[in-house]
Amino acid sequence: MIIRIASAACLILSASAAAQDGGLINEGAANTARELIESGLESDTGYEVVRSLTTEVGPRLGGSEQEALARDWAVQMFTELGFENVRIETFEMPYWERGAIDLRIAAPFPQNLFATALGGSAATPQDGLEREIVFFDSFDALRDAPSDGALEGRIVYVNDRMISAQTGAGYGPANQKRQFAWLEAEARGAAGVIIRSVGTDSHRFPHTGMMSTPNAGSLTSGSHSQAVVDYLNSEYPNLEETPVRSSIPAVAVSAPDADQIERIHALGETLTVQLSVAAGWRGMRQSGNVVAEIPGRELPDEVVLIGAHLDSWDEGTGAVDDGAGVGIVTGAAHLISQLPRAPRRTIRVVLFGAEEVGLRGAFAYAQQNADDIGNIVLASESDFGAGRVWSLTSGASVEGTAFLDEAQSLISPLGIIRGDRANRGGGPDIIPLSMQGVPVFRLAQDGTDYFDLHHTPDDTFDKIDPDDFAQNVAAWAAVVWLAADSEVEFRTPDE
Amino acid sequence: MIIRIASAACLILSASAAAQDGGLINEGAANTARELIESGLESDTGYEVVRSLTTEVGPRLGGSEQEALARDWAVQMFTELGFENVRIETFEMPYWERGAIDLRIAAPFPQNLFATALGGSAATPQDGLEREIVFFDSFDALRDAPSDGALEGRIVYVNDRMISAQTGAGYGPANQKRQFAWLEAEARGAAGVIIRSVGTDSHRFPHTGMMSTPNAGSLTSGSHSQAVVDYLNSEYPNLEETPVRSSIPAVAVSAPDADQIERIHALGETLTVQLSVAAGWRGMRQSGNVVAEIPGRELPDEVVLIGAHLDSWDEGTGAVDDGAGVGIVTGAAHLISQLPRAPRRTIRVVLFGAEEVGLRGAFAYAQQNADDIGNIVLASESDFGAGRVWSLTSGASVEGTAFLDEAQSLISPLGIIRGDRANRGGGPDIIPLSMQGVPVFRLAQDGTDYFDLHHTPDDTFDKIDPDDFAQNVAAWAAVVWLAADSEVEFRTPDE
Repeated sequence: MIIRIASAACLILSASAAAQDGGLINEGAANTARELIESGLESDTGYEVVRSLTTEVGPRLGGSEQEALARDWAVQMFTELGFENVRIETFEMPYWERGAIDLRIAAPFPQNLFATALGGSAATPQDGLEREIVFFDSFDALRDAPSDGALEGRIVYVNDRMISAQTGAGYGPANQKRQFAWLEAEARGAAGVIIRSVGTDSHRFPHTGMMSTPNAGSLTSGSHSQAVVDYLNSEYPNLEETPVRSSIPAVAVSAPDADQIERIHALGETLTVQLSVAAGWRGMRQSGNVVAEIPGRELPDEVVLIGAHLDSWDEGTGAVDDGAGVGIVTGAAHLISQLPRAPRRTIRVVLFGAEEVGLRGAFAYAQQNADDIGNIVLASESDFGAGRVWSLTSGASVEGTAFLDEAQSLISPLGIIRGDRANRGGGPDIIPLSMQGVPVFRLAQDGTDYFDLHHTPDDTFDKIDPDDFAQNVAAWAAVVWLAADSEVEFRTPDE
Repeated sequence: MIIRIASAACLILSASAAAQDGGLINEGAANTARELIESGLESDTGYEVVRSLTTEVGPRLGGSEQEALARDWAVQMFTELGFENVRIETFEMPYWERGAIDLRIAAPFPQNLFATALGGSAATPQDGLEREIVFFDSFDALRDAPSDGALEGRIVYVNDRMISAQTGAGYGPANQKRQFAWLEAEARGAAGVIIRSVGTDSHRFPHTGMMSTPNAGSLTSGSHSQAVVDYLNSEYPNLEETPVRSSIPAVAVSAPDADQIERIHALGETLTVQLSVAAGWRGMRQSGNVVAEIPGRELPDEVVLIGAHLDSWDEGTGAVDDGAGVGIVTGAAHLISQLPRAPRRTIRVVLFGAEEVGLRGAFAYAQQNADDIGNIVLASESDFGAGRVWSLTSGASVEGTAFLDEAQSLISPLGIIRGDRANRGGGPDIIPLSMQGVPVFRLAQDGTDYFDLHHTPDDTFDKIDPDDFAQNVAAWAAVVWLAADSEVEFRTPDE
């Protein structure tokens, strides 16, 4: 603890030179930001919030009873921490349930594989399927496969790997197969689909995650094959209005199990698997967003919105995804609430429901608060684990961008550089707001290891490094304070 | 590959000075050892053996049909590699089966835990048990607990952690709870026992492993409580003759789940779990040891015995435990078999059956080959993963010890020092031979990370580093060659 205090003191000294005369951030606000950095590095409030959520609620799948418990937990937590206007904004959503799974190699070398259903997967018949595997090296190879009946009644396997990257840039390309392999397989008459998990670890945990339906605009964009375009037009006329409803089971195997399939394939053996999946859609359920505020002292109608998502996948306890985000934004806002006076503008913390299963809470929030969206001067979400922040990106007005340049200077002693100034990414749950012109910033975290744990049972509290976590809280507290206490207009369009 | 050849060439040069005039190892044998080191670093035969075993057989629990497949695999493998006298020596053994498990926190915070049955565990009643947990910080605390009825009908939880150590020295102390907690719990009327896994990782894999029965001699030695001594005397009169037959279910939870239990306990909450275990003994089955030889050219009746165990736990594919050992000793012996002439003495490779479930193959081997044990001049097993060898230990005659000093000098370029010269540990399956005076050596591996994977589903082929593996093969080939081609008498007692 002594070491931490000393290092915080050094930060203050080195940061003192950052605020410039005549800038958009005055010395008083800058000093408060420096104090918040110091107290953020010292405070364990946010970390204890994650501990409490992951221990006392644990897994909390969107639409589940556990997620309802999490909302009650969040209301109590916000209330105990002294937030105001604490409320749950409920919404209805279709509920998908994982159920049991059993996947084994039936031939040539019988053995169990570790697998999990992908979100939206259909069930197998009750006594399962025993089918031959058709091996594809990559999603591209599957997408480009002819519709010649070769997949008819077989199970498609897609093998491509994900690369690890600080920005998480490997996720998008690797995730094509999780999102769309079911469609390519189904359109060609396959009986099921198995993918190598979208992840960067080599542990025996399969990674789950939702499958997607392409929106109409992308159907001919090249990311979907003609077989899928034709199939969708005939079979799924109202696709955009429904959640993914594959008619075939779709599952992911862990990396070591994918290696095993790959090795057997390399031997030239015909590989037959026995697959039993109980997953499926279970009707409509209630979910909700939990909102808490620090009312602004001068401009209470102007809102700096910061969020995270409260739901998690059902297998881990949702620590890095996204208990960490819940703790970071709550911890940062709580530090600000402890200042002698509130910021000019309102800080609104939104813990979104049902993010994992299709940004349900994010779209519900935007819909239910449509009249208020214009009041949101700046928004951001923490939803990329608990790794250190290394870059501040933003998408805001010219003046807002300049303001955030100065803010970055103040948090630079935390090891944070200024990133992209024309970036509309504020986090997944901010998408519906960003689409409507809400300015965003992001405190981009190091995600090199994030996809080792992402959507696996191994996403548990022990994986969070308290010092990295505290650096997040410090950065968030400073930036949110500065934005909320300013009168800078982030919203003015740039062009 | 160029780099590897270059480094092997360097080894030859630096090792040339090792053999001394007038030593026990002549220059011809030393040169052959150096060639074997070079070819060991180059060869992938042993590594491919592990690949084949873990892929084409996979999990192979002692007594299971998969283990029988592994024996057939081994016979074919040895035959294809040109070994002689390839045979299976079968034996009968009691068979324990894991079955399904379901463990969840029922109160105060309902959620699933990741658990596995310990070897020898009884089943719960079919609809499970819902019981309160009694938390013990350590096995010692449980052992010292009074027999006052406080555990009656409750489930004992034991929390102590294992430390990581290069030698694996943390295993013994941590393993007390896996071996004996069931007895301490059962003697006090508990309904079940849960332990924090014996392991050094923080992943969500529980570690299985057999429970033990204390032998009569240790009953009053202080490692067992008076409650257990009294209980055994009344309830288990013929304990030594039977495998562990706990009357209560005994399971291990993963480290993150143990942390969760610990956190809830720290909140002062009464913790109730729902436990359902289907494990149990399933009668007698056949197992076997697979033996292969390189007959000696001059002293064929004198045997250097090297081994590994063919069985594995049922959840992983038994790569580091002990596919690696199978590949290392097979790969090393195969290199020797490729030399222009065979060594003076016979090299016998023994792949023991059913090691994990109580050294069944090791005891069967010693019993079935009782008349031949005197012919074994030196023995060793590779059963500690695939980490680099760092030390050569031994327990042999004065002359044999001096010989192994010279052998170590020859393998020292591989980064191997001379360790303990009065060490009777030759590996688990060598115990019954060592107990009868067979001299042993051991190429001690770095086990710092071994217990991250040990007895978990994550023990898979991808965890083996090919370069570390090759260093093992090189060291084994050199030492085994030297011992087998010599006439040194390792067996003469020391004093």
